[in-house]
Amino acid sequence: MKALFFDGKPDLKELPEPVPERGEALIKVLLAGICNTDIEIVKGYMGFKGVMGHEFVGEVVDAEDTSWLGKRVVGEINIACGSCSLCKAGLQRHCPERTVLGILSKEGAFAEYLTLPLSNLHLVPENIPDEKAVFTEPLAAALQILEQIQVGPDDRVAVIGDGKLGLLIALVMHLHTGNLVVVGKHPEKLSILQASGITCLSVSEASERFSSSADKPEVVVEATGNPEGLRLALEWARPCGTVVLKSTFAEKPRVDLSPVVIKEITLVGSRCGPFPKALDILAEGKIDPRPLITSEYPLAQAEAALDEAMKKDSLKVVLRC
Amino acid sequence: MKALFFDGKPDLKELPEPVPERGEALIKVLLAGICNTDIEIVKGYMGFKGVMGHEFVGEVVDAEDTSWLGKRVVGEINIACGSCSLCKAGLQRHCPERTVLGILSKEGAFAEYLTLPLSNLHLVPENIPDEKAVFTEPLAAALQILEQIQVGPDDRVAVIGDGKLGLLIALVMHLHTGNLVVVGKHPEKLSILQASGITCLSVSEASERFSSSADKPEVVVEATGNPEGLRLALEWARPCGTVVLKSTFAEKPRVDLSPVVIKEITLVGSRCGPFPKALDILAEGKIDPRPLITSEYPLAQAEAALDEAMKKDSLKVVLRC
Repeated sequence: MKALFFDGKPDLKELPEPVPERGEALIKVLLAGICNTDIEIVKGYMGFKGVMGHEFVGEVVDAEDTSWLGKRVVGEINIACGSCSLCKAGLQRHCPERTVLGILSKEGAFAEYLTLPLSNLHLVPENIPDEKAVFTEPLAAALQILEQIQVGPDDRVAVIGDGKLGLLIALVMHLHTGNLVVVGKHPEKLSILQASGITCLSVSEASERFSSSADKPEVVVEATGNPEGLRLALEWARPCGTVVLKSTFAEKPRVDLSPVVIKEITLVGSRCGPFPKALDILAEGKIDPRPLITSEYPLAQAEAALDEAMKKDSLKVVLRC
Repeated sequence: MKALFFDGKPDLKELPEPVPERGEALIKVLLAGICNTDIEIVKGYMGFKGVMGHEFVGEVVDAEDTSWLGKRVVGEINIACGSCSLCKAGLQRHCPERTVLGILSKEGAFAEYLTLPLSNLHLVPENIPDEKAVFTEPLAAALQILEQIQVGPDDRVAVIGDGKLGLLIALVMHLHTGNLVVVGKHPEKLSILQASGITCLSVSEASERFSSSADKPEVVVEATGNPEGLRLALEWARPCGTVVLKSTFAEKPRVDLSPVVIKEITLVGSRCGPFPKALDILAEGKIDPRPLITSEYPLAQAEAALDEAMKKDSLKVVLRC
């Protein structure tokens, strides 16, 4: 099968089809999405070697439990041991023995086929087309914020960053508060949000808006992936407010953490989230992420797709597998 | 009156007695404590110029409301405007217009007299001697952690740092959990905690103890004031756990914040706390902070006292005013 393999650089290869281990299904990938984490992996993040990719929608083509055959599925990316103290405490996504699809010791989704444990799979309702379903994983990551903090209808929320994840977070937050502001640098990306009636500001506009303490947001979500975004988040957040840290930084940033203490800010790290809730939102049509797809490539052109995804004006690039 | 004045360097001066403004009391300082923040101020923190000091116990010698005269008091250090949106929301300690005793635009406590609004004062119960009462402010700061996070009797808690504040935090945490570990580098300081039955470990012992995820603490309090302490806190904390950041860093540290996101840690900045609760604990004798006093100086030797407080093996140095 064709697969985009990473070993220092991304390389489209012919590889043998993966063989499901006990409890695993073999899945024919239909559509896969390129995430910023994939781009970080190309830069050396996690020291990953193997088939890249973790966002996908596919069809089960082999499984011990034959009721899964032919079913359209999405899959949780963390594969836990199931027996350690964290797994037993319900923290499977934090299992220290875990592998992670296309990120840590597990062959990924930029391929014709992948394998995952049946326990990681979720059926995709029929009314969700592949182009929406492929967003389940990042939408779940956006929804994770609401598993960690409460956002009420009058809460002032700011999202910093207009990348793929920032936009999904904004769409999610817009469902929960009428006081959302999104701060970004790319008018064409922000226009997707403005079409949903979301207020979008430039950094200088936001700095002015948030200069008075009466207007500072209770919640700021940092989704830029750079230290300047974190600095702004700490500056803009209301005293005793919450800053959600959604993106990892490739290198150790030099950050002035004094505002965290002086303003008594709660900084919440947030990663993967609940697939069932993401599927519900997609099935109910509350969020349509398809405007975020800026281009589609066949798997055979995966290297070009990765180059495209790295461009500043790209949002979601998908691979037809 | 004598006062320790800071203007680039600490200088014992003869200054006129302060004159209370409307709503303020004139207080004769009895005993004052030297805090790490005072040492940071000597290094240039906050760009403060004026009479240093914010931890004190004193006696009211002048006030419009004469019922305060002769009363022994401690005083909250943040002087709020009382009318902004944060003050109205109960966040007076975060008032953007605030002055702070001996820290920000308000003459401090290393003096024979100081002034504070009556609304900042708390009566000291008779059974609390001055040597305990002088710890009210830092004990309140330690207690603030419990205003922000919940600690149950079985929760694993680690406190990193065996300085003045670290020890007070440890004594407070010991009242709430039987699973406390304090990590420090100074056996003679840790011995104060060991006398109360608290488990104390060196950094290498703690690294070994917390290497297995089953033993990682749910809560880690960082009270070392250096970036290495924060690095260890993020490493040791359980996934989805809480790291409390209690000390400000003089400079911007280079910190790898990836663990915050990957482990979904909640980082809680924590500053000043509730005086009434601190006074209750001192009155009930639940905590006796006096073993933390390593030396006492008369106000006339305040410069020598500050030098003493800067020594590695010092804990609380107090000034008899």
